[in-house]
Amino acid sequence: MKQSEMLLPTLREVPADAEIKSHQLLMRAGYIRQIASGIYSYLPLGRKVLRKVEEIVREEMDKAGAHEMLMAAMQPAELWKETGRWNTFGPELMRLHDRHDREFALGATHEEVITSIIRDEVNSYKKLPLTVYQIQSKFRDEKRPRFGLLRGREFLMKDAYSFHESYECLDGTYQKMFDAYSNIFRRCGLNFRAVVADSGAMGGKDTHEFMVLSEVGEDTIAYSDTSSYAANIEMAPVITTYEKSDESLKELDKVSTPDQKTMKQVADFLGHELQEGIKAILFKVDEAFVMVLTRGDHEVNDVKLKNLFDAGYIDLATEEDTRRLLGTGFGSLGPIGVSDEVEVVADFAVEALVNASCGANEEGYHYTNVNPGRDFEVSKYADLRFIEEGDPSPDGEGTIKFARGIEVGHVFKLGKFYTDKMNASFLNDQGKATTMLMGCYGIGVSRTLASIVEQYHDDNGITWPANVAPFQVHLLSLNPKKEEQLQLADQLYSQLQEAGIEVLYDDRKERAGVKFADSDLIGIPLRITVGKQAGEGVVEFKVRASGEQSDIESGQVITKIREMLS
Amino acid sequence: MKQSEMLLPTLREVPADAEIKSHQLLMRAGYIRQIASGIYSYLPLGRKVLRKVEEIVREEMDKAGAHEMLMAAMQPAELWKETGRWNTFGPELMRLHDRHDREFALGATHEEVITSIIRDEVNSYKKLPLTVYQIQSKFRDEKRPRFGLLRGREFLMKDAYSFHESYECLDGTYQKMFDAYSNIFRRCGLNFRAVVADSGAMGGKDTHEFMVLSEVGEDTIAYSDTSSYAANIEMAPVITTYEKSDESLKELDKVSTPDQKTMKQVADFLGHELQEGIKAILFKVDEAFVMVLTRGDHEVNDVKLKNLFDAGYIDLATEEDTRRLLGTGFGSLGPIGVSDEVEVVADFAVEALVNASCGANEEGYHYTNVNPGRDFEVSKYADLRFIEEGDPSPDGEGTIKFARGIEVGHVFKLGKFYTDKMNASFLNDQGKATTMLMGCYGIGVSRTLASIVEQYHDDNGITWPANVAPFQVHLLSLNPKKEEQLQLADQLYSQLQEAGIEVLYDDRKERAGVKFADSDLIGIPLRITVGKQAGEGVVEFKVRASGEQSDIESGQVITKIREMLS
Repeated sequence: MKQSEMLLPTLREVPADAEIKSHQLLMRAGYIRQIASGIYSYLPLGRKVLRKVEEIVREEMDKAGAHEMLMAAMQPAELWKETGRWNTFGPELMRLHDRHDREFALGATHEEVITSIIRDEVNSYKKLPLTVYQIQSKFRDEKRPRFGLLRGREFLMKDAYSFHESYECLDGTYQKMFDAYSNIFRRCGLNFRAVVADSGAMGGKDTHEFMVLSEVGEDTIAYSDTSSYAANIEMAPVITTYEKSDESLKELDKVSTPDQKTMKQVADFLGHELQEGIKAILFKVDEAFVMVLTRGDHEVNDVKLKNLFDAGYIDLATEEDTRRLLGTGFGSLGPIGVSDEVEVVADFAVEALVNASCGANEEGYHYTNVNPGRDFEVSKYADLRFIEEGDPSPDGEGTIKFARGIEVGHVFKLGKFYTDKMNASFLNDQGKATTMLMGCYGIGVSRTLASIVEQYHDDNGITWPANVAPFQVHLLSLNPKKEEQLQLADQLYSQLQEAGIEVLYDDRKERAGVKFADSDLIGIPLRITVGKQAGEGVVEFKVRASGEQSDIESGQVITKIREMLS
Repeated sequence: MKQSEMLLPTLREVPADAEIKSHQLLMRAGYIRQIASGIYSYLPLGRKVLRKVEEIVREEMDKAGAHEMLMAAMQPAELWKETGRWNTFGPELMRLHDRHDREFALGATHEEVITSIIRDEVNSYKKLPLTVYQIQSKFRDEKRPRFGLLRGREFLMKDAYSFHESYECLDGTYQKMFDAYSNIFRRCGLNFRAVVADSGAMGGKDTHEFMVLSEVGEDTIAYSDTSSYAANIEMAPVITTYEKSDESLKELDKVSTPDQKTMKQVADFLGHELQEGIKAILFKVDEAFVMVLTRGDHEVNDVKLKNLFDAGYIDLATEEDTRRLLGTGFGSLGPIGVSDEVEVVADFAVEALVNASCGANEEGYHYTNVNPGRDFEVSKYADLRFIEEGDPSPDGEGTIKFARGIEVGHVFKLGKFYTDKMNASFLNDQGKATTMLMGCYGIGVSRTLASIVEQYHDDNGITWPANVAPFQVHLLSLNPKKEEQLQLADQLYSQLQEAGIEVLYDDRKERAGVKFADSDLIGIPLRITVGKQAGEGVVEFKVRASGEQSDIESGQVITKIREMLS
C-alpha cells in the first residue's frame, strides 16, 4: 500500500491526555483517533491490526468448535428485565428509546439475547451441546473512561456462549475454550497468564481471567517464576511450611511499650524482627467475633477468612465492639486471656513462632516471650494470609512473583444463572424438562490490541510482533526525486506485492528524517530502505525490534524477508 | 461442519409476518431470527453468507484503492449540529444520552464523523485524494420496518467516503467506485442495474443507484432490453421521434361532450384512439402559470418540467386559479384561445398530431380536428413525459422495459455539501485554503444478502450462487445407523475438508425426508447423498439449482465437485 494515498497522520508530540504508552503510541503513530471520551475511530493502520487479531480469534474459535453468529446491538429492555439486570447493571448499561417509546439497551454483553434465542430454538438434548460466538462492538458507559483502548465506552469484543446438558460437558467445553484462549494470546505474541479468579456472585466453581502482564494493569497477579501457575492475588493459597526454631522457651513477660502504635514500632522498641511479632485483628464474621492472628509481616486475606467460616458476611469489628470484648482499642490486641465470646484463629505461620511478642489487651503494654499453646489457645490454624513474593508457588513448582495484569479474556462457568431465570430448558433423554447449563467466554479484541503495544514498544515507537503487525515490511524510498532510487523502490514494491508480502511503501515527498521517525513510530517488523546505494542495487535492511541492520543486494530482499518471517 | 453441532433451526411453516420470499426463507432455513421489529440476529448460516458478501465488498474496495477503517457507532450530537442534520434527519436518527447527559446519535451514516477526522488530519493537497471505507452496523429507526432484512432498523452497511482537490479527481474516484460496485454485485450473482438517479437536495450532478431487479422492490426502473442503460423512471429521457401523418387537415370543429370526464371517455365518445387526444394540465411553476400538453396516452413527468424551467418550485394549479385563468375546471382544458397570462408548452409527441381533439375551456365541450400551429401556438416543445415500456432506450440501443428494483448501492458526488458546513479545507499547491470535494458510496450488505435470496430461490427453498453460499457442498448421510453409510459419509467428510471444500455434513439422527427437505431449504449449491448404495461405494450427486442428479462413484466426488465449481 502506498503511504502517500493513506490516511496515516503521525504526531511528534505526545497527546496531553494520553497517560500510558499504548494510548500515546497508537495516537502518535496514526492508528486511532478519539471522537468522544472513551470512543475511538480506527484509522486504516489500526483497522488492519484489529483485523489481524480478529482473524486469530476467529480461527481459534472455529478450531474449538464454536460457530460464529452476529447478534444485534439493540436489545429490548424486556430481556434484561427477565434476568433482573435492567436494574442491577446500573448506569454502565447504555439505554435508549425508539420512536414508539420502547426501551432498548445497547449491547454491553449478550447473555440475555443468546439465551432467549436458544430457549426458543433448542428443545432437545439431541441439539446440545452448542457453542456460538460473535465479534462485535460493545457499549459500556464507563464512569471514567481512560487509558485509550484499555477502558473505553465502545469497544470490540469477542463473546462466546455454550449450552450443555451436563456439568461434564460444560467442563469439556470450558477446557477447550481455555486452550483456545491460550493459543490466541500466544499467537498475538503476548506475555500473559491464565489466572484463577473469584467467581463472585455468579456462582459456579470455575473461572479464569487471562491477564497480560503489564505495569499499567489494574489487577495484581501472583504467579510462579517457573510453572504456569497464576492466580488473582486473593485466590492464591499459601503452601509454605514454617519451621519452628529449637530455641528454648523463655518466661512470659509483660513490658511497657508507651506510644508504640504499629507492629514495626513495637518490634523496633522491643529489639526484634517484625516477623517475631503476632498481629491480632478482631473481625465480625456473620454474627460472631473472631480474632485473627498472623505474623507481624503478613496481611490477613479476608477472602480466605470468609471461606474458612463459609460466611455470608465479614468485616472488621468496630472500635466499640473491640473495647467491649477485649477492654482495649485496636493497637494493643493479643490472644492471651481473651474471653469465650471471641474465637481465636491463626495463620499457620503463627504456630511456628517461639518467644514472640503480642499485644497485652491493655493500652501501652505488650507481652514478650509469648509461645502459642503454652500462653494461649487457638481454635483453628489455617491458611489465612495473602501470598507474598518469594513464597513457594501453590503448585509446588517455583517461587511466587507478583505482576500487574490487564484482563484481556475471561472464561466462566455460569451454570444455571441465566438459564434458570429465563426458563431455558430442554427435554433430556428421559423426556424430562431440564434447565440448560451455560458457559460464557469473552475477549476484549481492541483491548488486546492495546495490550500488545504495552508489551511491544521502545523509546521510538511500536515494535509489533509479525503476526499482528499491520504490514510485514516497510519499504522506504529516501529520495524519490532521484530516478535510480524511485525506480528501484517501485520495482521492489511490485516484487514484494507479487510475492504476497504485506508491504507499506513510503513513497511520500518527505525528508529522510521524517520517514525514519515515522517508520520507527509505526513499528512494522522489517524495513527496507532504498537510498544512496540504489545505483549499485544495494538497500538497507533493518529489523525494527532489535535494531539490527545491514546492507543487502536488492535481489536478496525477498529471500531475506522470507527467512526473517519464518 | 457437522450439522448436529450447529445452531440451525429450520421451520416447516411460513412465519406469519414474513411477506416476501427472502424474509420467509431466511427465517425458515435458519439464517436469521428477529429479536425486535426490524432487528435481527444472524445465526451461523446467516453469518457465513454475510461474511462472504463482506469479503467480496472488501476485496473490491481494496482493489479500487479505498482503505478500510472503523468508526464508532456512538456519535456526539455536536457533529450533527454542525451540518444541521441533528434537526433535519428526523426521528429515523436514534438518539441517546450518556451518564453525564451528553447527547449522542447512533450512526445512521458517517459523513459528519469522517469529515471531522479529515478536517483535523488532512491539511495539504499533498495528502489528497483519499478514499476510506468501513463495514459496520448502522441504525435507522424506520417508521415501518418490514420485509425482513430489506428494511430493518439495525443493518450491516459498507460506507465509503472520498476527498478531493478537484472535480476531475472526484470524477475519477466516482468511476472507480462505480466499477467496483458493478464487480461486487456481479460477483454476488445478482441481476442488477446501475440506475441514473435524482441528486435531490444534495446538489452535485452525478448519482447512481444500484438496483437489484425484483418484484418486491420499491422503485421503478426504466431499462434497455439490450444495452446496460437504466434509470430511475423519473430520470429517463424520451428519444422517440414522432412521425406526422400525411392525412389532410380537416376543419376545426367544436362538439358537445356532455358528462365525458376522462381522456378515455372523451376519446370513446368522439370515436378516436386515446393517443389522438391532447391532454392539457395547468401547473404553477414558481410564480408563473404553465399549461403542459401531452398526448392523451402519456403522463407529464414533473421532474422534466421543473428542469425545463430550472424552477425551484412546481405544483398543479388550484381549481380556483384554473377557473380564473381559463374560465373552466380541470376536465375541459385545452390550448386554444388561452390568455397571455398562461404559457403553453408541449411534449414533442403533440407536435406530430393531426386532426386531434382537445378541451374547449368550456364545460361539456371539446374541439375536434385540432392542429398544432394552425389552431394554437406553443412556446416550447420539449421532452416532458414519463418514458414508457416500448419506447426506444435513451442510449439508442434496444427498447425500454420496466422493472421493480431493490436499492442495494448508491454512489454520490457530494461536492462541498458537508465540507463547506464543517470547514474541511486544505492548502492547495498555491498555498491557498480551499474547501475539499467529497464523494460517498454506500452498500447495504445485509440487504444485498436478502436481495440474492429474492433472485435465487424456488418452491423448495434457497438456491445460492456458489460465490456467496454458506457452504459449497451439503453432505447427507441418510441412515447413519447403518455402518457402511456412516463410514463412507465420515470418510467423504474428511476428504472434502482436506481438499479445502466448504462442506456442511448432515450427520443428524433424522429421517431421510427431513434431511432432503432441510437441504433444499438451506440451498447449498451441490449435494452428496450417502444412502443405500454406500456398500457399493456409490453416492448421489445433485445440483440444487437445476435439480440435475446422478449416481457417481465415491472416488469421483471431489473431481466432480471441482468441475462443477470451476
